[in-house]
Parts: sequence; C-alpha cells; structure tokens
Amino acid sequence: MLVVKKFGGTSVANKERIFNVARRCIEDYQKGNDVIIVLSAMGDTTDALLEKARDINPNASKRELDMLLTTGEQVSVSLMAMALHSLNVPAISLNAFQVQMHTTSRNGNARFKRIDSDRIRHELENRKIVIVTGFQGVNKYDDYTTLGRGGSDTTAVALAAALHADRCEIFTDVEGVFTADPRVVKNARKIEEITYDEMLELATSGARVLHNRSVEMAKKYGVELVVRSSMNTEEGTVVKEVVKVEKMLITGVAADKNTARVSVIGVEDRPGIAFKIFNTLAKNNINVDIILQSVGRGGTKDISFTVSEDDLDDTLRLMEENKEALTIKEIAHNENVAKISIVGAGMLSNPGVAATMFEALCNSNINISMISTSEIRITVLIDEKDADKALVAVHDGFGLED
Amino acid sequence: MLVVKKFGGTSVANKERIFNVARRCIEDYQKGNDVIIVLSAMGDTTDALLEKARDINPNASKRELDMLLTTGEQVSVSLMAMALHSLNVPAISLNAFQVQMHTTSRNGNARFKRIDSDRIRHELENRKIVIVTGFQGVNKYDDYTTLGRGGSDTTAVALAAALHADRCEIFTDVEGVFTADPRVVKNARKIEEITYDEMLELATSGARVLHNRSVEMAKKYGVELVVRSSMNTEEGTVVKEVVKVEKMLITGVAADKNTARVSVIGVEDRPGIAFKIFNTLAKNNINVDIILQSVGRGGTKDISFTVSEDDLDDTLRLMEENKEALTIKEIAHNENVAKISIVGAGMLSNPGVAATMFEALCNSNINISMISTSEIRITVLIDEKDADKALVAVHDGFGLED
Repeated sequence: MLVVKKFGGTSVANKERIFNVARRCIEDYQKGNDVIIVLSAMGDTTDALLEKARDINPNASKRELDMLLTTGEQVSVSLMAMALHSLNVPAISLNAFQVQMHTTSRNGNARFKRIDSDRIRHELENRKIVIVTGFQGVNKYDDYTTLGRGGSDTTAVALAAALHADRCEIFTDVEGVFTADPRVVKNARKIEEITYDEMLELATSGARVLHNRSVEMAKKYGVELVVRSSMNTEEGTVVKEVVKVEKMLITGVAADKNTARVSVIGVEDRPGIAFKIFNTLAKNNINVDIILQSVGRGGTKDISFTVSEDDLDDTLRLMEENKEALTIKEIAHNENVAKISIVGAGMLSNPGVAATMFEALCNSNINISMISTSEIRITVLIDEKDADKALVAVHDGFGLED
Repeated sequence: MLVVKKFGGTSVANKERIFNVARRCIEDYQKGNDVIIVLSAMGDTTDALLEKARDINPNASKRELDMLLTTGEQVSVSLMAMALHSLNVPAISLNAFQVQMHTTSRNGNARFKRIDSDRIRHELENRKIVIVTGFQGVNKYDDYTTLGRGGSDTTAVALAAALHADRCEIFTDVEGVFTADPRVVKNARKIEEITYDEMLELATSGARVLHNRSVEMAKKYGVELVVRSSMNTEEGTVVKEVVKVEKMLITGVAADKNTARVSVIGVEDRPGIAFKIFNTLAKNNINVDIILQSVGRGGTKDISFTVSEDDLDDTLRLMEENKEALTIKEIAHNENVAKISIVGAGMLSNPGVAATMFEALCNSNINISMISTSEIRITVLIDEKDADKALVAVHDGFGLED
C-alpha cells in the first residue's frame, strides 16, 4: 500500500515533534507500506521569513518572496530525513525541483499542472521513505512558486493522485472533521465519513480543517482523504465519494466570521448594472458570496453582498473608483457580521431543513439579515456577536450531537 | 563590461549591509556594466543550520546536510533581489538548479563540472542584475551539493569563466592581499598585483584571503581576479597571469599555525616503506606537507612530516592501525608548530633568498626544525609561539614594507 502523510508546521516545530512524526511514519513503513511524507515549514518559519522580507522591501515581488519562502520547507524535509536516518530507516528529502512539481506560473498562488513521478518511484523502489516539500512548485520559467493558503494539503493530494496512492492522510491538531467547531459547540461530534461535496461546502463555509482546493483535487482524482490528529492515533474522518448509508440529514454546521457586508445604495434599476458591479469585483479576484437585491423603487434599487474581510478594502476602493459608471449613490459596509452554514447531502430530499434552521435561530433571538442556499448548503448572515450562540442553537436544533 | 562580484556572509549579515552591497553593485550597473552578484549565506546562518542538524542527528548524511545548508544562500539572494528592487533596479535571484551549476556528485566537497550560461545571459540581456547562490551546485542525480570551504569564491570564479566575465571581484573584510598579515606585521603593505602562482603559494601557506581552489580555477581559465574590501572603495589586489615589471624579489610572507608535525620512528630502511606511509595517508585524503627523513642507521630510519591540525587525529589513527605493516616502532607528534613561508617569483633567479630568510630568523633566535621549498616558495617549520615574531622578522629582513 502507498500512503501519503501530510504534517503541518506545528507538527515539526521542534526536535521532539520531528521525531514523533518520524516514529509515526516508521510504523506504517515497517508494515511494508510505501510512505511519502509531505511537510510544511517548521513552526512560524514562514512568518519569520515574511517579516525579514517586509523589513527589506514592504512591496517585495512575489517571485522573490517565493524564492525566499520555499527555503522553509526545504529545511523541514532535510531535518526529517536526518531524524529518520538516526532511527535507522532509509529516507530521502526532495524539493519541488527534484520531484519536478510543475505549476502554473502565478507566484504566491500557483496551481499544480503536472507532477513527475519518476524520481519518487525510484526512491520508493529502493524502500526509502520519501519526504517532499509541501506548498511549493516550479513554473515553466524554472522559478519557484508557492500555492497559497493550505498549499501543503494540496501538495499531499496532488502527490497521492499522481502516484495513485491508496490513501492520503492529513494530520492536524484536531481529531477530524466535527459537526461543528468543538471549541464552540461542546457536544460537537466527530464525523466518521463525509463526501467530497459536503467537505467542500463545509470548507468554504468556515470549517478550517481542510483547504477547499485540496478537497476539489481529491474529488477530481478520487483520492481517499483522511483527516486525523497528529497527537494521537484515533481514526479521524474519511473524505470520499460515497459514504455509508444511514445518512444524517445534516452533516455539520460552520461559522465564518471573516466576512463583511457591502451595500451599494441607489443604483439605477436597469439591466446590466448588477452585472457590471460583480464583473468589476470578479476581474479583481474578489469572490462575492451572498447577494441580496432590493425591489426597485423610484427607478433605483439597493444591492448588498458579502466578501471576505481580507477583500473589504479592495472592494470599497473599487466601488468608490467606479461610483459614477456603476451609478452608485452611496456605499455602506459592515464588518460585524458572520455566516452560519449547515451542510448535508440529506437536505436535497428534505424540504423542512431551512425551516428547522430558522426556528432554531429564532428561538435564540438571532436575527437573519441575508440568506443563500446551494443544493447541499444553507447559509445565513447574522450579527458577528451572535455567531457562537447560533452555532450551538443550530447544532442542537438538528440534534447533531447524536 | 561584465563583472562578477562576490560578497561573503558578513557583508550581507543584516539589512544595512545588504543595502550597502546593493548600492555598491548599482554603481557598477549604472555605468552600463552587466553585473552578477554571488552571495554566501547571511552571517552565521550556516553554523546555525549545522547546529540544528547536529541536534537531530550528529552523523547526518552529507546529502541531507547539503539539502539543508543550500537554503542559506537562497535566503541571501532573494533578500538581495528585494533590496535592489526597492532601489528601483531590476534584479533576479537564481539558485544552483535555476542556473544549472553542475558539479561532481560528492556531497560536502563537490567540484564544478559545467555551468549553463543560458538563463543568466537571458536575464542579463534584459538588463537585470543577476544574483546567484554561492557555495552550491547540483549533481547528476539532481541533488544539491556544496563546495566545501571557500566555496563561494569558487562559484564566483566559475561563473566568471563560464560567462567570460571581464573581471571577478572578491569582496572581503581586508583591503586586498598584503605582504604579511597586517594584524601581526604592522608595516605590511598591500600588494597591487600578484601572479596566480604566487597567490596560490600564499593561499596554501596560510594567507586566508582567497581559497586556493578559486585561484587554481582563475589561473586555468584566465579570469582576472580582484580582492578588495567591502567596507571601502580602495582598489584592492589584482591577481592575474603577468604582472607589471619591477618585480619584487619576494611578494609576501605567510604564517600557518594550523599545522602539526608527526614523526614515525624506527621504520625499516628499505625501499617502498615511505611510499606505503604516504600512500596510506593519500588514500584517506590527508595532505602531507613538509617531509623530513633521517639518514638510515642500524637498518632503521625516522620520517617526520606535517599535516593540517584538522587531519592530525585521523593521521595518528591510521599510523597506529598500520603500525605493523608500516614497520613503525614509535609514533610522536607535536601540535605546537607553525609554518612560515615566503613567496615570490623573483626568487627563481636569486639564490640568496633562502639565506636572507634563515638569517632573519637566526637574528631573532628562532629555531628551524624543517624546511621545504618549491620554485617560488620557501617554507620553514618553527615553534608556534615564535610565529608572529618570525613573520615580522622575515618581513623586515626582505624590506617588504617599502
């Protein structure tokens, strides 16, 4: 069996943890399995490197930032190889050039195009544990690229896909995917199995356990993903195409406080204006989430939408710059909002789900300002201060603790 | 004009120094020159990385050590590119994979085989300052290698040779090559020009300003080398094939305290024994320097030789292990010795040079225990405690201060 195991920066932050990871991987190796380890940079290395860069040049080029940051994972993988050697297990570390992990050219936010499997296969055939740098790739100019947030998860899934691994284990500081954030909802339950689609909806709704790009890729290539704790040997959560019967109506609840509402007021009520507004944002890589449009009155209307808080400044600037062309009279915004989402394939055939959710929120005196739905997700926008209360109320309302 | 400029770790140890180097290189660039910068790892980065490795595995594999250490120069070059950008000068950093600096496979002590010039030429044609990682290469297995001590000097010379640069400037913390170590001999004089051969003899005699491998390569490819200070804009010392007329008899004096004498006593006085002794050492990569052999008496003789102090333990172990085969009765050694060498092409045609040297030492009551000569060098072995005194005496004896 071929297993890809990914460990984040905290799991390799110091000598003791590096050896923990090494011993854990050796267990699998000694069962006769082939093992590939994907690592992030140690602890806060990436932040420290970014700080160094900012000190030299606050507007450092993304190309040079990637050149700088990619050293972080190279340090992790070489130290891990040394740790495995000292435990008498053959191992070799490889970076993006050595594997040849080809990505698109975009520095800081590249995507995998193709991963050569020759070198890794060769090393596995020699019964070595292969340790690969996460988060990084090489573009067609032979320049380093990085993959953006959650990049190492994506590296692990991409390697698993390229080498037809039997499973891809993502080790984190939680025991798996929960029905809600266990720090907020005390009786949240670990989910044993979840479909790719549900996981994707949860990931984009604020559950931080897996990056959605890695889930997308796992779905595309049918890679069986396992999310589990690096602290213990519990089974974790399996993410795959089809899960066991006895489906729950709702798989989980998630809150996302990193959201802001923007309202453009008094725009002309004629075709094409809304398109222009959202096209302006899309061209600037700003993802718009929930959209609410008032009924036209007196020839004008109001449009509200949510963006990630990180994109708020850019959004407000773009609206201001294009105020005239977009016929906007006034711009308002609110950062003190949160999204609460319920996700579950069960809701497809169950019309009462939205009502149950709204009832739970109503009983807790929580006001809903916007609503958005997909086939397997319902999201509402509420006051940020109510987010934790809402999470508990909805989790209880659907009886997810059982 | 194409110039290669090499700066060591102390020259890029912090933000201020990085900007100093950047501004210095921009001056050359703005004269219309093409500029390649070769950098070592910042400050004590390499030592810090080695410390990390030792903590994980005291016997870390050289392959993984190279994987770890090569991150140091990559950090330097990316930060330098950011500094140049912030001064509005186009620049790009490249590592050994991106340049394709091919070396022999030996990790930790590789030698250059071939350097591809395409990528660098391409960037220079776009009027970019190109910043290249020193000290590192890539071997035929696509693994990182490092070049050993003084490696970045060699990288600079190799790049200058591959790209037919007009000059290769090695920036150090001294103003150039001196007639003797200016910290010991107060009236030592900076040498304006020196031949490759003289520089080589000085480098192997203890003058630490240039690594001899880089001088060898400069001689082989006719690269004009300049050694100059990174602190000021003084002209420095030019190393080349033929220097101006008016040759001095002696170019410089050097002391090397990193030396130890080993004596093997009572070996059989028959052909082949000396060969066996030195062959044993050569096979273990131990360089033997001065050799003194006593006249045979009673069928046995004594052989003394010097090795670098770093090699002393290995040397003693090898002699002990092969005591019987080498017919050795007794092994003695002394670490408290130093070599004093005078170097100069002028001595070829001047038989009185050795006499002048011995006289200077004799007048200072310094005893000579061994002597070795090459065409342009005379080396004597003395007590280590006399080394500084000897340096001053010989320097004065030849009137090198003028």
